[in-house]
Amino acid sequence: MFSDALIEQILAKRAPVCVGIDPMLEQLPDAVAGDRAARAKKSPRQVIDCYYDFIMEVLRVVAPIVPVVKFQSAYFEQYHADGVEAYFNLISEAKQLGLLVIGDAKRGDIGSTSEAYAKGHLQPIVDNEEAATPDALTVNPMLGMDAIEPFVQACEQTGKGLFVLVRTSNPGSKDFQDVELKDGKTWSEHVADTLRPRTAASGLVGTHGYSNIGAVVGATQTHTMVSLRKRLPQSIFLLPGYGTQGATADMTRAAFDARGLGAIVSASRSVLYPKPEAGEAWPQAIERVARAMIADVSRVVDDRR
Amino acid sequence: MFSDALIEQILAKRAPVCVGIDPMLEQLPDAVAGDRAARAKKSPRQVIDCYYDFIMEVLRVVAPIVPVVKFQSAYFEQYHADGVEAYFNLISEAKQLGLLVIGDAKRGDIGSTSEAYAKGHLQPIVDNEEAATPDALTVNPMLGMDAIEPFVQACEQTGKGLFVLVRTSNPGSKDFQDVELKDGKTWSEHVADTLRPRTAASGLVGTHGYSNIGAVVGATQTHTMVSLRKRLPQSIFLLPGYGTQGATADMTRAAFDARGLGAIVSASRSVLYPKPEAGEAWPQAIERVARAMIADVSRVVDDRR
Repeated sequence: MFSDALIEQILAKRAPVCVGIDPMLEQLPDAVAGDRAARAKKSPRQVIDCYYDFIMEVLRVVAPIVPVVKFQSAYFEQYHADGVEAYFNLISEAKQLGLLVIGDAKRGDIGSTSEAYAKGHLQPIVDNEEAATPDALTVNPMLGMDAIEPFVQACEQTGKGLFVLVRTSNPGSKDFQDVELKDGKTWSEHVADTLRPRTAASGLVGTHGYSNIGAVVGATQTHTMVSLRKRLPQSIFLLPGYGTQGATADMTRAAFDARGLGAIVSASRSVLYPKPEAGEAWPQAIERVARAMIADVSRVVDDRR
Repeated sequence: MFSDALIEQILAKRAPVCVGIDPMLEQLPDAVAGDRAARAKKSPRQVIDCYYDFIMEVLRVVAPIVPVVKFQSAYFEQYHADGVEAYFNLISEAKQLGLLVIGDAKRGDIGSTSEAYAKGHLQPIVDNEEAATPDALTVNPMLGMDAIEPFVQACEQTGKGLFVLVRTSNPGSKDFQDVELKDGKTWSEHVADTLRPRTAASGLVGTHGYSNIGAVVGATQTHTMVSLRKRLPQSIFLLPGYGTQGATADMTRAAFDARGLGAIVSASRSVLYPKPEAGEAWPQAIERVARAMIADVSRVVDDRR
């Protein structure tokens, strides 16, 4: 099951780290996409070809050193059907390289509609597309527990995982997630408390004690990390926001348990688009930055052990 | 701009009604999809061909009588790239038939990612796909105002519209949207109050006094309709939940202004999948049910005038 597979890969690679796959044309290395003038002339099909070349190389670089990658659906969806085809094909390639894959699609709708999303993203109708769907999906809980339930049931049937948005990494997360309720809890704390019983259902919790139902908690949100960790003790935390969004490894300390497990720190742009050092090819730069991130986060995790 | 175009179509057709396009294989008429055995044997490509046949006929039936249709992305997305291609192609067909189109995708993410979603769904990178993107999009505000802002800016640039989820139609909407904050407001009311200034920005408000930034408020949520109407006076309300989800026309009364404007009642399954009467072909049954819904809602609207 997903939670066990993730923890075993984290232990084997000694890297509680996720690399986010956020392809952005303007950020790609010149060696892949050409200079500014060349990029401006590319057709959508040519842009997607660049995405393939770039992402395949990124996956080959990171597969030996990180347990999991996270594909951001939006960057593919903007190219409509061709982009969506690339999204699922590249997820398949990542899985073949031995990586676990999170689909970062943040879906969520009323029950009957969430069922369709769960089929599309976790439990495909199409048999031969099983290989192309991610091992876990991010979902948005705003619509309520009945909106999440079809995704949870898909996880019960497939052994796959979810990461439910509980507190996001962006500055605006304070607007609607940090508001204080009448009982003194924040809205995010209330979401966590409501979600908790469902994370503990038999069949969802693996041999390492963690549930397939995890939570997204922004690495930037240190003031609430301890509280959310206590409220969701069996959920693996996916912690985006390291690097470009400003979070440091030290800010994630409270998300890890005493065994140094229970969380993965995620970075996208800071790993994908580093400035190469003199004489360094772009894939080497990515490997250098990914290894530096692993060392940085591991230091915090080792403190917890 | 979207809000003016919608209101003009509502006035011209005397129908503050939206038909939701939720294609479900098991519900399609036998004349389109065959019997149960035939359906079970269909390949995804064949299912999508059935969707085309069905939806094209639905669009031809409803185009003369309703102003707007709402495509539910999930039912297409479950067929991956082929489904997404059908989604955008059928949106294009609906627009060519003179219908306004809402894309019901409920997207929302951190700012940089919402920018990519806004490009995919409102402001396409690909010139020749402009015709295939909807006139308005549903978005999820959980991540905060910075998550919505790229969509709002796309509306400012294109004249298109948004419907921000404020209170959804499903029973579980109470879990996280109806919770009471310290200041006595519900979470949904707080979202409405926070959103309001942005709906009133110059350039977003049309000649009829309504903003391109509308709100989704479940037709089932009568207890909060008056409050949300007051808090978002310039937002057109999209009211899903009529029919299969249990809302009646009378339950939507408070969403309409004294001119009978400011809201559209939406139904999907109850209009798409009626039981035909003796001797009635399935498109006639859809027309009959759509006309009955229009008469039902119009009665409430005429009361307001």
